[in-house]
Amino acid sequence: MDHLKETTIKKEKLFTGRIIDLYVEEVTLPNGKTSKREIIKHPGAVAVIALTDEGKIVMVRQYRKAMERALVEIPAGKLEKGEEPIATAKRELQEETGYTCESLTPLLSFYTSPGFADELVHLFIANGLHKDTQEHHLDEDEFVDLLEVSIEEAQGMIETQEIFDAKTAYAVQYLQLQALLRK
Amino acid sequence: MDHLKETTIKKEKLFTGRIIDLYVEEVTLPNGKTSKREIIKHPGAVAVIALTDEGKIVMVRQYRKAMERALVEIPAGKLEKGEEPIATAKRELQEETGYTCESLTPLLSFYTSPGFADELVHLFIANGLHKDTQEHHLDEDEFVDLLEVSIEEAQGMIETQEIFDAKTAYAVQYLQLQALLRK
Repeated sequence: MDHLKETTIKKEKLFTGRIIDLYVEEVTLPNGKTSKREIIKHPGAVAVIALTDEGKIVMVRQYRKAMERALVEIPAGKLEKGEEPIATAKRELQEETGYTCESLTPLLSFYTSPGFADELVHLFIANGLHKDTQEHHLDEDEFVDLLEVSIEEAQGMIETQEIFDAKTAYAVQYLQLQALLRK
Repeated sequence: MDHLKETTIKKEKLFTGRIIDLYVEEVTLPNGKTSKREIIKHPGAVAVIALTDEGKIVMVRQYRKAMERALVEIPAGKLEKGEEPIATAKRELQEETGYTCESLTPLLSFYTSPGFADELVHLFIANGLHKDTQEHHLDEDEFVDLLEVSIEEAQGMIETQEIFDAKTAYAVQYLQLQALLRK
């Protein structure tokens, strides 16, 4: 795909954050002209599709400052430095929901916003959920409501835009597809 | 959901870009403590699921600087100021692929990275595709390959990670689901 490649001439780091970094890169385009690319570097994240024994999807409601509203999402969180995605998935599921699981299976990974960010989300399926006897332990700046909803309820929440993010919409559609395939 | 709300104490704009802006906001958390949120503001985008008369999905291969590689994605692009999403969808489909369509139907919208960005992607279904006799007209810093792939090929490209982004993975899964529902 070399005929599409953009070569960096100059790279400037404009912001170093706790979660994201911002770069502006000057690039040579395939036609020899130059342009600028605004790029967010992100450590990557995981998200977990977790079904209870009653077939309910485990979700969390969380305030999302970028949108100034709460969203209902599947449990998710960003990778800590050097952490394997499966370890993050196990940790985030327990921290956000209080559930442990017998196994976690990678489903797929995807970039969320390839036009400007390198955030890669690794999606896992949790099997064999157990409610931890302990309280769940959130990060000190994290506050969530725990929800357990049926696939039908989740579809309704997509229509009312309570569920309003890509990974959760993908997860709900995945569960619809699996339910159809089982029939 | 007021018990989850984070109230802004101080908001600082640290970068104004061509596509994204960066803010750092100091917030009061539900427990009264303070924290900082790194937030990317984005104009929003559209993406189009377009099937040819032969049932092939119209895709574009494009270099994505944030990942330093090319990805295969459904046609997509960001909203121009004041532009209605459906107009963006019509424009981007034609610019990136040379296809016009008889109708565009909104499917759903989702935030791509709610943890740090407000980018909202509006997904449309294009019906009645016609190949424009004119050349397609890309933005001056945009270079793409046009592809037309079957649903099965697209599933294979998800496995090989040629397709590796959320909106396209959602679109392929949507088409799988629709194909099953028609059976």
